[in-house]
Amino acid sequence: MARPPRRGPGKRVAVLGAGSWGTTFAKILADGGADVMIWARRPELAREIQEAKRNSDYLPGVNLPINLRATARLDLALAGAEQVYVSVPSQSLRENLIAAEPHLHAEATIVSLMKGVEKATGHRMSEVIAEVLPISEFKIAVISGPNLALEIAKEQPTAAVVSSTSLETAQAVASIARNRYFRTFVNTDVIGTEFGGVLKNLIAVAIGIVDGVGYGENTKASIITRGLVEMTDFAVAFGAHPETLSGLAGLGDLIATSQSPLSRNNTAGRLLGQGYHLADVVNQMQQTTEGLASVGPILELARAKGVAMPIVEQVRQVLAGTLDPKDIAPHLTTDDEPQGERTMDGQAEGGTALRRAVKRALDQLRHSGRGAPGDRS
Amino acid sequence: MARPPRRGPGKRVAVLGAGSWGTTFAKILADGGADVMIWARRPELAREIQEAKRNSDYLPGVNLPINLRATARLDLALAGAEQVYVSVPSQSLRENLIAAEPHLHAEATIVSLMKGVEKATGHRMSEVIAEVLPISEFKIAVISGPNLALEIAKEQPTAAVVSSTSLETAQAVASIARNRYFRTFVNTDVIGTEFGGVLKNLIAVAIGIVDGVGYGENTKASIITRGLVEMTDFAVAFGAHPETLSGLAGLGDLIATSQSPLSRNNTAGRLLGQGYHLADVVNQMQQTTEGLASVGPILELARAKGVAMPIVEQVRQVLAGTLDPKDIAPHLTTDDEPQGERTMDGQAEGGTALRRAVKRALDQLRHSGRGAPGDRS
Repeated sequence: MARPPRRGPGKRVAVLGAGSWGTTFAKILADGGADVMIWARRPELAREIQEAKRNSDYLPGVNLPINLRATARLDLALAGAEQVYVSVPSQSLRENLIAAEPHLHAEATIVSLMKGVEKATGHRMSEVIAEVLPISEFKIAVISGPNLALEIAKEQPTAAVVSSTSLETAQAVASIARNRYFRTFVNTDVIGTEFGGVLKNLIAVAIGIVDGVGYGENTKASIITRGLVEMTDFAVAFGAHPETLSGLAGLGDLIATSQSPLSRNNTAGRLLGQGYHLADVVNQMQQTTEGLASVGPILELARAKGVAMPIVEQVRQVLAGTLDPKDIAPHLTTDDEPQGERTMDGQAEGGTALRRAVKRALDQLRHSGRGAPGDRS
Repeated sequence: MARPPRRGPGKRVAVLGAGSWGTTFAKILADGGADVMIWARRPELAREIQEAKRNSDYLPGVNLPINLRATARLDLALAGAEQVYVSVPSQSLRENLIAAEPHLHAEATIVSLMKGVEKATGHRMSEVIAEVLPISEFKIAVISGPNLALEIAKEQPTAAVVSSTSLETAQAVASIARNRYFRTFVNTDVIGTEFGGVLKNLIAVAIGIVDGVGYGENTKASIITRGLVEMTDFAVAFGAHPETLSGLAGLGDLIATSQSPLSRNNTAGRLLGQGYHLADVVNQMQQTTEGLASVGPILELARAKGVAMPIVEQVRQVLAGTLDPKDIAPHLTTDDEPQGERTMDGQAEGGTALRRAVKRALDQLRHSGRGAPGDRS
């Protein structure tokens, strides 16, 4: 494909982290005309990107833009960068930011490309950024959406959301992080956008487990439908707008992640569903699997707000080895729900009623007979 | 798997139509303990089901229950049946009902298993039933959900929705149409439940087209997300509850249909996306493809209510041969949207705002450069 015409030197931006997503995003930015320098922790990887315009470990076969520069020196990567896109493992974000801080441009906007929460604190990535760096929250943005890195690296048409509590910042980022195959939208619901990207990983692990066990599309579609309700309930309890979860950063990302054989979360789930132990799965995955790392912190947050997350809870049990993966679909609910709560209104398929209905149904799947006479499910 | 214990003779029910879904549903009912007779139009098919307990044309390799009976005589199938489940091609429903009417039990409940609209009238299946038969709407129910027939025939755990304006009728049907692998929920939103099943077929065709062209999960997830908004807008304009479309009969069914290689709608779309002409595709499909038949009637209904359905409209253009399938993703919108409408609120990702945003984005995908400075997308 032809490159768009260059219009003089583009805005100077930095990308921290040269995994598959960081490298893909650096390509997105460079293809959009920005002057991009990517920071790789390992000097040999920086050299490969800088000289061969390749990242053979994480993006095999993909040619990187000729105008993409790379370095293993944080100070060089950050010097003069007005926007800093961060794509490091979520558990190492804090230490990476501390290392970066002395070199940051005074007016730099920090853009999180990460989907996860910090295990030790349960904080979202944008919260960790706000804690570590002496900047206004208006200079922090996050990007999310149905964004499988390898598909974007192959320049397939993709849409994403840029979110910041400052609409102006979101727009400034969106205007740089776009090109002919990557379109960006804006919103100001950082909480919903960020939690969408975290929570879908957990549901994707569940889908992977079910896939590994051998269930088909009917079962998976029910779990995605039910999972979206769970994601929305959780995020709204923390202040998100429900529409955000029904959009690209919620449902869109959930579907892409759940359906893709390229998704690490899906793959990890599939291996678990096939009967591998967590330790083996973690060993086998070359890269961090955010969904596995987020299960504990998310369930703690959910408990604190009184949000029920039966699917995520069952994923935790599979990870802990206390639930046989093949029981995950029938066990998506607990059976300690009091009988009195089983009454159903006429609209069983929406929101809380849906939750109750699916809970009850899946509970009953464990029993081979029919429900009690008069049972409304 | 062991059959559940029989508890004396079950309720006498009939299934009209012995295609893959009708036969699968007869199996569901028989496995749940009902006394089922299925009507097949062709005597040789009735004989195969009755004697060999097989339907090798539509459910190859599936053993049907020993207690499932079959006949090619409508009068015998309907004699004494308290519930009549109908699964005939949607365009032949009216004539089939006229033929069945003289033989119907006076108190029979009619249950539509069909997903489509009558081409000549644009009416939903339950509306056609109400027009032809001299029965109260309270004796009419519909069943929908993420229900790929072959997966259910293989007894994979599945959930579905029974809907009737009479909750009592919905419950009576749900209590018969259930077994250890098939769970039913109830609601009273017949409009939403039925339109969910119709509209998802159209979006599934669009997904198939995109698939055939070669786009990946990012693009498909965006279309499903956007398609759900389109489905919801349409159904709500006709009186549906939006929650129904976010539930099993809407989103759940949409995902299952869009992702399944078993879906006829998806397959038809894929063939179109690969460049085959509509006539060849129709010839190649052994069975009716509801999604293709519903495009015209649905767009007419949408126009009458002023609902914009850009995805369905583009499917129509591909079917008519006036749009190259490879242009469907970039062309999901029209570019005659006035510039003044392009202003965007801060929550671009929800409902109408999402629609506008995706419309604009996909519009812009056709242009290789950036949007105008200050453009909010």
